[in-house]
Amino acid sequence: MPIATPLTELLGIKHPILSAPMDTIAGSRLTRVVSNAGGFGILGGGYGDRARLEAETNELKGFAPFGIGFITWSLAKQPELLDIALDAAPQAIMLSFGDPAPFAPRIKARGARLICQVQSEDMAKQALDAGAEILIAQGTEAGGHGASRTTVDIVPAIVDLAAGRVPVVAAGGIADGRGLAAMMMLGASGVLIGTRFYASVEANGAEEAKQRIRAANGNETVRGVIVDWSRNLLWPAPFTARTLVNDHIRRWTGREIELMQRAGEVAVEYAAARAAGNFEIAAVFAGEAVGLIHDIPPAAEIVERIASEAEQLVAGRRNSAIGAFPSPLVGEGGADAIRAG
Amino acid sequence: MPIATPLTELLGIKHPILSAPMDTIAGSRLTRVVSNAGGFGILGGGYGDRARLEAETNELKGFAPFGIGFITWSLAKQPELLDIALDAAPQAIMLSFGDPAPFAPRIKARGARLICQVQSEDMAKQALDAGAEILIAQGTEAGGHGASRTTVDIVPAIVDLAAGRVPVVAAGGIADGRGLAAMMMLGASGVLIGTRFYASVEANGAEEAKQRIRAANGNETVRGVIVDWSRNLLWPAPFTARTLVNDHIRRWTGREIELMQRAGEVAVEYAAARAAGNFEIAAVFAGEAVGLIHDIPPAAEIVERIASEAEQLVAGRRNSAIGAFPSPLVGEGGADAIRAG
Repeated sequence: MPIATPLTELLGIKHPILSAPMDTIAGSRLTRVVSNAGGFGILGGGYGDRARLEAETNELKGFAPFGIGFITWSLAKQPELLDIALDAAPQAIMLSFGDPAPFAPRIKARGARLICQVQSEDMAKQALDAGAEILIAQGTEAGGHGASRTTVDIVPAIVDLAAGRVPVVAAGGIADGRGLAAMMMLGASGVLIGTRFYASVEANGAEEAKQRIRAANGNETVRGVIVDWSRNLLWPAPFTARTLVNDHIRRWTGREIELMQRAGEVAVEYAAARAAGNFEIAAVFAGEAVGLIHDIPPAAEIVERIASEAEQLVAGRRNSAIGAFPSPLVGEGGADAIRAG
Repeated sequence: MPIATPLTELLGIKHPILSAPMDTIAGSRLTRVVSNAGGFGILGGGYGDRARLEAETNELKGFAPFGIGFITWSLAKQPELLDIALDAAPQAIMLSFGDPAPFAPRIKARGARLICQVQSEDMAKQALDAGAEILIAQGTEAGGHGASRTTVDIVPAIVDLAAGRVPVVAAGGIADGRGLAAMMMLGASGVLIGTRFYASVEANGAEEAKQRIRAANGNETVRGVIVDWSRNLLWPAPFTARTLVNDHIRRWTGREIELMQRAGEVAVEYAAARAAGNFEIAAVFAGEAVGLIHDIPPAAEIVERIASEAEQLVAGRRNSAIGAFPSPLVGEGGADAIRAG
């Protein structure tokens, strides 16, 4: 039986699983398959490439449900992109990394839900004040941009702050049904998942990038400024980017000042590597959940796996005694045997 | 109904809740009350103060169950302290931060269980090779010493690595029943909790330190080397300490090289502040879970609260449909209403 929460109710979806609007990785193709599988696909709005946004949103016109995600501080430079997004009639607009207030009225006037991703209590208050209808509490485990609080810390903190007024979605470090079930125990109404969907058939990433995600363990990602500084992309504090560790990261770690001083030269090298698909220099944006990712299946299969594993964890509790709980709880008769002993 | 797991079975305890062996904070008093409440109290072995260890273990002779925890690299300097510990007939010895192999045979020969705390897959393999019977997977959220991987990342990674051979206990960022329930979803058999027990009546910490933990939110801790370097205590890599942020941390952040160069002078200042109970200079070791801590109750009450909250989260699933699930899952009729819609 699917897990119903205030989130699934609000968005009209079967499973409480959202795919993250990963820059150009989360295109209309991934968005569609996630939603068709019962989750909620969110198109990546990226850094303001108008032609790309028009093309991708055209692919989604008439489709439902789906969302479109923007980097708020980037959107503020080209606010007209929001109209292109809204013209595709998404069920939700997701804003991350910046003040959502200037955009909230237009979003709500067009009947889209406002989803705000936050990394602290202050950002959550700002989002609620702006009229956010869903909060995403993002932990530092997440791939790509984020901040420093961990998922286990920030999720219950935002759940407590929201106090039931809006559903809270957990993000960062989640790639399987265990993670979804765990986040629900912390009070979340669902999860936003990035890296696991990056390593799917339908994500727009390079095959080599997907293979690196598949092969990496949780120890092989790092959060920092090297990648952004290497492409002349200055993000506002406190946001930094988590990527796989590669030669470029190893080369510049601890030499960030020098990197800044040689930014022009490094940017040329970085852009060339990116164009050539050289992922020992160009970054693969990925979260700590890489350690849980061992294949590159269709995204629909990912949704199904996560949902059914979480449902089993729920059902294991519901069916009968604790003895029926899946490992690591004790097996049949075990619990009674212990208590009798 | 208490939650039974392989951990509760192995240790013969009612609740899968272990109290962390926090240096001098976790004395025999805290150890006793945690165990008497149905958890498993672990005495802090500290940094090798023989007289203190003798006094504290004397208080525990004849008591059961309990454990004694050591900082492995520190114990290696005074291996005879292990005999003092074993003479008190603890049910378990917990070793953290170093190779447990040299100590494992003596521990097992005396009939105590070997608990090893680990922060990476490599450390977990080393511990299993040494004969660890319980693994504690510690996330960076933890107060005091630890490493960089987060709880949501390291717990399932170690669960997968252990593959059911030994119970895995989650540590780092856990202070309530939501955390215990969440960790069980990730595959853990229980939790090790430090900071929440620091802010208890029976912990040995200064009242002022406990009050600071109570008042802090999850944004007010930091992991780093400043505290250790300020007291001339050089820990082996990759271990650093998480503490509350105070004036001293703010003063030295980003100036670690200078701190190292002025270590003698700073150590005098730091020791004086510690003696005087000046916690704007001396550290309060605490984890990110401070944000979930709002009072300073008896430790037995903490055990009961965490256990009963986790049991309710379990029972909410077991009793009937998802509709019976506590918030944030939808209320009675909600799930059916959505699916019908």
